[in-house]
Amino acid sequence: MDTTTTEKQVTSVITSAELLKHWQGHRRLTRKLIEAFPEKEFFEYSIGGMRPFAGMVKELLAIAVPGIREIVGGKGEQLNEHNDKADSKANILALWDEATEQLDHYWSQIPEEKFHENILAFGQYPGTVWSSIFYFIDNEIHHRAQGYVFLRSLGIEPPHFWER
Amino acid sequence: MDTTTTEKQVTSVITSAELLKHWQGHRRLTRKLIEAFPEKEFFEYSIGGMRPFAGMVKELLAIAVPGIREIVGGKGEQLNEHNDKADSKANILALWDEATEQLDHYWSQIPEEKFHENILAFGQYPGTVWSSIFYFIDNEIHHRAQGYVFLRSLGIEPPHFWER
Repeated sequence: MDTTTTEKQVTSVITSAELLKHWQGHRRLTRKLIEAFPEKEFFEYSIGGMRPFAGMVKELLAIAVPGIREIVGGKGEQLNEHNDKADSKANILALWDEATEQLDHYWSQIPEEKFHENILAFGQYPGTVWSSIFYFIDNEIHHRAQGYVFLRSLGIEPPHFWER
Repeated sequence: MDTTTTEKQVTSVITSAELLKHWQGHRRLTRKLIEAFPEKEFFEYSIGGMRPFAGMVKELLAIAVPGIREIVGGKGEQLNEHNDKADSKANILALWDEATEQLDHYWSQIPEEKFHENILAFGQYPGTVWSSIFYFIDNEIHHRAQGYVFLRSLGIEPPHFWER
């Protein structure tokens, strides 16, 4: 087993465990962004007709765990951004932390040979397992960066991008 | 050779060729963002004291090719965001296209077993080859998303995030 692991380390671009750690690092930074918003502005402030940052965070919550659970279980998931519990910053942070644990839990059930399988994420988006997961992560970086601009425009210094 | 490739496909999260294709897809989208900006606003418009989008694009140009060239050649590179030629949208688009070709060229020289080597990117940022490259890509997604907000705030509809 040790040899296999080492070999995989050496011949892979990135291992499954490293990709999860990378994503959870990004998720820790997104959590800091949520914390940096004042309560009211988190739910109401926006620029150029975009959603407030809370709306984007609800999308991220609707994607991460259901997206990985679908990959693991094969059962179709709905992309449901509506969540009655997501009505305060504190409650959204609690949902975020719950998702952090669930993500670790479901991720451990993805066999490494599954990353090149073709799937329809949320029953509608075609791709491979890896390209879907990369989309989930990239989409989080994308929306979080929009939160950075909202904070800057509110005169609030956001956490450094490299803080994970 | 065919068996090896197939096996690598099956047991890897993502292959080196797929990661390059993924990045170049993101780079095509960033190019569309540059095109979407009016000339003046590209160089002058900003929100909350941030750099204009042209400044961010110059950073991306300073990172991509020099970063990969350093990984391939091992010779230290400077992070130099100043470029006399980057004085118009058309010239920056030309530099972007030049970088697209150079990236393909240097990338093909990264041996797959190198992705887990430890490096000091630009002589100062410690990480592995894979984590450095992921940082380059993530940083591009991050700044491009800030360009999205600038465009929205100018009343310009940006290209869809999933267009690559």
